[in-house]
Amino acid sequence: MIVVMKTDATVKQTGSVIKKIEELGFEPHLSKGEKKTIVGMVGNGKKVEPEIFMVIPGGESVVPILKPFKLASREFKKQSTIIPFNGFTIGGDEVIIMAGPCSVESREQTLEAAEAVVRAGAKVLRGGAYKPRTSPYSFQGLGEEGLKILKEASEKTGLAVVTEVMSPEKVELVVSYADILQVGARNMQNYSLLEAVGKSTRPVLLKRGLMSTIEELLMAAEYILANGNPNVMLCERGIRTFEKYTRNTLDISAVPIIKQLSHLPVIIDPSHAAGKRELVEPLSKSAIAAGADGLIIEVHPHPEKALSDGAQSLHPEEFETLMNDLNAIATAVNRKI
Amino acid sequence: MIVVMKTDATVKQTGSVIKKIEELGFEPHLSKGEKKTIVGMVGNGKKVEPEIFMVIPGGESVVPILKPFKLASREFKKQSTIIPFNGFTIGGDEVIIMAGPCSVESREQTLEAAEAVVRAGAKVLRGGAYKPRTSPYSFQGLGEEGLKILKEASEKTGLAVVTEVMSPEKVELVVSYADILQVGARNMQNYSLLEAVGKSTRPVLLKRGLMSTIEELLMAAEYILANGNPNVMLCERGIRTFEKYTRNTLDISAVPIIKQLSHLPVIIDPSHAAGKRELVEPLSKSAIAAGADGLIIEVHPHPEKALSDGAQSLHPEEFETLMNDLNAIATAVNRKI
Amino acid sequence: MIVVMKTDATVKQTGSVIKKIEELGFEPHLSKGEKKTIVGMVGNGKKVEPEIFMVIPGGESVVPILKPFKLASREFKKQSTIIPFNGFTIGGDEVIIMAGPCSVESREQTLEAAEAVVRAGAKVLRGGAYKPRTSPYSFQGLGEEGLKILKEASEKTGLAVVTEVMSPEKVELVVSYADILQVGARNMQNYSLLEAVGKSTRPVLLKRGLMSTIEELLMAAEYILANGNPNVMLCERGIRTFEKYTRNTLDISAVPIIKQLSHLPVIIDPSHAAGKRELVEPLSKSAIAAGADGLIIEVHPHPEKALSDGAQSLHPEEFETLMNDLNAIATAVNRKI
Amino acid sequence: MIVVMKTDATVKQTGSVIKKIEELGFEPHLSKGEKKTIVGMVGNGKKVEPEIFMVIPGGESVVPILKPFKLASREFKKQSTIIPFNGFTIGGDEVIIMAGPCSVESREQTLEAAEAVVRAGAKVLRGGAYKPRTSPYSFQGLGEEGLKILKEASEKTGLAVVTEVMSPEKVELVVSYADILQVGARNMQNYSLLEAVGKSTRPVLLKRGLMSTIEELLMAAEYILANGNPNVMLCERGIRTFEKYTRNTLDISAVPIIKQLSHLPVIIDPSHAAGKRELVEPLSKSAIAAGADGLIIEVHPHPEKALSDGAQSLHPEEFETLMNDLNAIATAVNRKI
Repeated sequence: MIVVMKTDATVKQTGSVIKKIEELGFEPHLSKGEKKTIVGMVGNGKKVEPEIFMVIPGGESVVPILKPFKLASREFKKQSTIIPFNGFTIGGDEVIIMAGPCSVESREQTLEAAEAVVRAGAKVLRGGAYKPRTSPYSFQGLGEEGLKILKEASEKTGLAVVTEVMSPEKVELVVSYADILQVGARNMQNYSLLEAVGKSTRPVLLKRGLMSTIEELLMAAEYILANGNPNVMLCERGIRTFEKYTRNTLDISAVPIIKQLSHLPVIIDPSHAAGKRELVEPLSKSAIAAGADGLIIEVHPHPEKALSDGAQSLHPEEFETLMNDLNAIATAVNRKI
Repeated sequence: MIVVMKTDATVKQTGSVIKKIEELGFEPHLSKGEKKTIVGMVGNGKKVEPEIFMVIPGGESVVPILKPFKLASREFKKQSTIIPFNGFTIGGDEVIIMAGPCSVESREQTLEAAEAVVRAGAKVLRGGAYKPRTSPYSFQGLGEEGLKILKEASEKTGLAVVTEVMSPEKVELVVSYADILQVGARNMQNYSLLEAVGKSTRPVLLKRGLMSTIEELLMAAEYILANGNPNVMLCERGIRTFEKYTRNTLDISAVPIIKQLSHLPVIIDPSHAAGKRELVEPLSKSAIAAGADGLIIEVHPHPEKALSDGAQSLHPEEFETLMNDLNAIATAVNRKI
Repeated sequence: MIVVMKTDATVKQTGSVIKKIEELGFEPHLSKGEKKTIVGMVGNGKKVEPEIFMVIPGGESVVPILKPFKLASREFKKQSTIIPFNGFTIGGDEVIIMAGPCSVESREQTLEAAEAVVRAGAKVLRGGAYKPRTSPYSFQGLGEEGLKILKEASEKTGLAVVTEVMSPEKVELVVSYADILQVGARNMQNYSLLEAVGKSTRPVLLKRGLMSTIEELLMAAEYILANGNPNVMLCERGIRTFEKYTRNTLDISAVPIIKQLSHLPVIIDPSHAAGKRELVEPLSKSAIAAGADGLIIEVHPHPEKALSDGAQSLHPEEFETLMNDLNAIATAVNRKI
Repeated sequence: MIVVMKTDATVKQTGSVIKKIEELGFEPHLSKGEKKTIVGMVGNGKKVEPEIFMVIPGGESVVPILKPFKLASREFKKQSTIIPFNGFTIGGDEVIIMAGPCSVESREQTLEAAEAVVRAGAKVLRGGAYKPRTSPYSFQGLGEEGLKILKEASEKTGLAVVTEVMSPEKVELVVSYADILQVGARNMQNYSLLEAVGKSTRPVLLKRGLMSTIEELLMAAEYILANGNPNVMLCERGIRTFEKYTRNTLDISAVPIIKQLSHLPVIIDPSHAAGKRELVEPLSKSAIAAGADGLIIEVHPHPEKALSDGAQSLHPEEFETLMNDLNAIATAVNRKI
């Protein structure tokens, strides 16, 4: 950490910064420039809140040097995390496609979707039994009934299941039906929930909040890892910007940046990022080209009848065509689907 | 709701939009311009998801006309909501000041803060017993011990207490100690929590997510209202923008806009918006000038020793000076503190 | 255009909206719902500012239906614009790579860069003779001397030249040396400049402002087209968001969206979007996968000595490797480089 | 400047950073922590681009310590700049109100507006003769004819005139008619224009770009100051965010921050920030409460007939009422209007 002193800071003020650093058990390093004086503190492995130095008179700003995440960092674990499932892995050579409806609406709809996506080459079935909706008057999901339907679809098709869990007390229930626990974008900083899924051994798909920086996403992953669950996938699903033609702006740079900063697999959700069906194909291609380890795509047997997200859901035939196109891109970056 | 057809939409496509509207029990209104055809649907009081029309071939966009919030709207309830407490009200003529430390760190610190803020004229004591922290390694609050300290401070000073609740299963516990339940910015769309505090009768201070629109804030309030709790205060605490000199950007326009759209009281948190102690005074003044019903301000007996948010906490004497200055502004807008 | 009346608008207020529409020579369409009344105006081909209706008492909001750009729209011109150059085209089957240093620093540096990029397969040489710099104390470019060096490099290598023009009175001068006029991101809404390059016949590379929506980018293109110059390329180079690991956030969705809304070619600038050399490769790949018609990439013979943008400039050998990788992606989307 | 080395940087890499610093004539300061090594360079008064160090192998990031603006900084000039006009000053005790129509539409409209605003207590008449419009098909202003009308209105009422200049070659013309040259938000980084107004002696009202940081605004002012013109006012007029109820988000914190960082006067434009007439009053009050030196407000004798910005323009009677209310706030912060 570096403390930058104000231009008119007195010698006494600088002295009290140095004293504080020593009190904390660190070694202070003083650098006096023509205009600015800075004091570096050399780490002893302990964590110090930068704010401590912001309240000392004469201090102008504090510059942290260490990244705030540890277990999630590539520096901590050089080798990429590969999460094993029944018959495939996430984070390895293969690009994994997760697909299915936004919501589990009925047994028939879900089974039809599951059969379509497994036929086209998907490995994981997505589908929401608990739905976080902006309006209390919108369809909120089928709850445990939805989980049962997902389980049945999984058994019929061999697909693994990823589904959202919205509160700590439901974690155990969802674990009993699903293979991957999804933490939704709105709950990315719901720390009670992060702790609860961290105590599970089930892999977690952690979605980036639409208002969260990559650093905050990694800090949220850190909560899960620090609670004992090493199997975390990070999912970029679009961030909120001023642009209005898309629902959110897919931050494609997040793929290489996360790969550089962290050892955890990166999944892209082109459906929520775009909010428009016709953008799913180009965004899926660009995600694989940028190095994503997987995609999560909304597919509905009858999008025009979907209770949610119909506008961004693919028809099964569109999904099949997409899978073919994605194969070509995967090959071009030396991966397979 | 209005469905705008693509420029090259066929008569058949427009027909199928009209048919769909009739099927839903609404009355369709067709307007054909030189370039564009639009179909309005005239409400029958039922709610329809706009997305239904986005998936019909030939449709270009759907424009909602009705606002999505009802109970929270000024149209639903013309008169401003006034929330009664022991000896004062929130939402009436008086501007209410809530003040205290970011976190309850100890009995001594909290009592000292409480005495300082009540002396200066505050009506509510703030202080966190459960702290949502970005890092799992930071101080997470004293928990129930902190609630007890707050209760004691309240009994000694007569201050009401506002404190954060972070998960549904803790609502009952927090209710047994606090007068106002705070839902933090990161939990603004934690729907399980919103439902839980909605089922309580205790007033709720709902903080705007740092990248949530005013409409989303009102929709979150709608969850609480729809669950039966009418006593909601909305708190603007800065939104995330590209500007870097402030931690967040205080959206001062939110005050008059919320007052126009909703009947609920509006509280401003200048401490979190700014992240810097020296901005608290000008932002507090501007908030009252803009029509806020209250402020929530961080005050710490010894900011330089604070475990969190020291840089933005006022010294007790600074707070006292501030209160005097705010009185003058309140008078200028025909209110009192 | 649709005028939405306030819930409590009177019949008389609605009547005055209808009257205004008739006065303007349009046909009003009235739709009365249970809660809201809306009045549509059916176009007569004339343009009306929406604001006219916002000031009528009783009006709540105005919803424009027509897109504000015409000549730039795909509706106006179905066929994609293909811009011909000496030996290649932009906007056709081929993906065109523009490459070179941020600034023309010297004859030697520019010639070395030009030779490196032509060898690797680039078709256009980039390089700034006039540099818009945030600080008045930074290197501002070599001016006309720089233009001469670019011209010489072009003659030696056969590369076309793209370079920035910063003010209307310099357009003629830059035209005498360069093949493509670049309008920089900061000048995207410098209307005097847009008019001046619109009166030229030289193709224009129009960069999206880092604060501009896609609609505003298309409106800026409309200025150039309306002044008579049909050869406009649109360049996405990253937008400003809250994310801090990248200098800007590359809006990859802009590629398919612009292709859908407009007939103009789309170029991606991964170097400025990322601000970091190691992101250039994944972002370039994703751009081609998403359907971009070209890339503009910073390459410097000695990035460590660059007077500007060294951190995001590729070494010539890195660029050569990149070109090979990009070929594979181009093939996967049925294009060639 | 501080160079932070990567965790796995070699001793040789750190050595080459140190060597580079010495070559540049600075003194290197090495600090080795348990995890990170950092190298500070102590200034010799010369400016160095941080990028030079980003390209050295082993370097992770570069942290600038000095602010990039000099002449605009409070550190350079402690005393607040007070700009003298005929009969009043800007930046002193008085809060100055500038008011008038968005565009000069006709002699009659402008004279009527001028008489209304001078009667209510404004000191400066605003009005655009050259209008930067998003669409090439919108009203572009009356040009020199508009300047003549403004001059006449000034002579009749004694009001000073502020009006926008859009290109370098028009500066001389505008100077011959106006008292204050406005540089619009879209041109904040049009460096040719900044240089041209910097060479004038006429005071400049520099508007913040709608997605420019405060630092960038101060850097733009630096261009004007460095070219010899010391009389610059900085105008906050709303920044672009994700919030949709307002056209832009007024960054009220910019007032105290600019006052702290710089000696230049700060003006607030509540009309453009809000885009809605009913927000002008609360935002004007909050601006004065926060410490602004002036306001620039749109007033039109007949907003419903305005060619631009009618929805955010006040009626003359509304403006008169506002002026009374603002007086009370000014008194409460020990200033006068």
